[in-house]
Amino acid sequence: MSDDVQGAVPLPPPEGYQPLDWTRGFGRAIGPLYRRTAAGGTTTGFRVEGHHTNGLQNTHGGMLMTLADMAWGNVVSYERSVFWVTVRLVCDFLEPAKIGEWVEGGGVVMSEDNGLYVVQGRLWAGERTLMVGSGVFKALGPREPRPGEKNYVEGVKA
Amino acid sequence: MSDDVQGAVPLPPPEGYQPLDWTRGFGRAIGPLYRRTAAGGTTTGFRVEGHHTNGLQNTHGGMLMTLADMAWGNVVSYERSVFWVTVRLVCDFLEPAKIGEWVEGGGVVMSEDNGLYVVQGRLWAGERTLMVGSGVFKALGPREPRPGEKNYVEGVKA
Repeated sequence: MSDDVQGAVPLPPPEGYQPLDWTRGFGRAIGPLYRRTAAGGTTTGFRVEGHHTNGLQNTHGGMLMTLADMAWGNVVSYERSVFWVTVRLVCDFLEPAKIGEWVEGGGVVMSEDNGLYVVQGRLWAGERTLMVGSGVFKALGPREPRPGEKNYVEGVKA
Repeated sequence: MSDDVQGAVPLPPPEGYQPLDWTRGFGRAIGPLYRRTAAGGTTTGFRVEGHHTNGLQNTHGGMLMTLADMAWGNVVSYERSVFWVTVRLVCDFLEPAKIGEWVEGGGVVMSEDNGLYVVQGRLWAGERTLMVGSGVFKALGPREPRPGEKNYVEGVKA
């Protein structure tokens, strides 16, 4: 018997989610993160573990903002297949999540002007919205569409 | 000879900075963080290591936002000795920082209304401003002033 939940094996992600291939740097420190891209769009998520929490055993705000950055920015990747950097992020914190919950996020590109994309985004856990906000992302340049992205054509690039 | 900078021992923090006593959760995963509180105010900072970086070997946006949350929110702790939660954070990304740089942040309480504090904040590395923005923090209730906080009186609480 133990209350050491941080040692428990986390539940797998929901169906269709694939782990992000990020084995070093900040992504490794705060991972694992997962992504699901389908015809309808793309979402990014993670299962809350001990190393995502604050002193109240809730998701730390920094972790939720990190997910917002990656989930909302990835909407630009999915829609336009460009490299980008984050210029501005506005995050409204509505609710935290607890250890064991699956937290995911996505958004919609609302405008595109002069290489600046504005994404309206949301993070949620089941039926609960955890965060709403917006991101401004600056395109650095186009790249080849990757599998799952809107402009990817099967077989055009092997 | 090696280019494995992630294995190198980081430089110590600047004079007066003390490590945050945060040995678990998200703070441990993304730490170590340091704080310096003096008569003039309070700043929070970290030395950029490999586990703070993105694929470009710059500080990841999520790490900078985490520091913004903690550095700007701590201004409320310093000024008012209250428990608080983050309600909103607005972050404008101006520049990233590189491995080895000392990054720090602080801010000013601009308004206080009905338990909501608005802090105007900044993150910087030496002379370079990395981020400007603002945070809205909601007071959860008062607590005893801690050493270094504005309202702390030596010897009143042992």
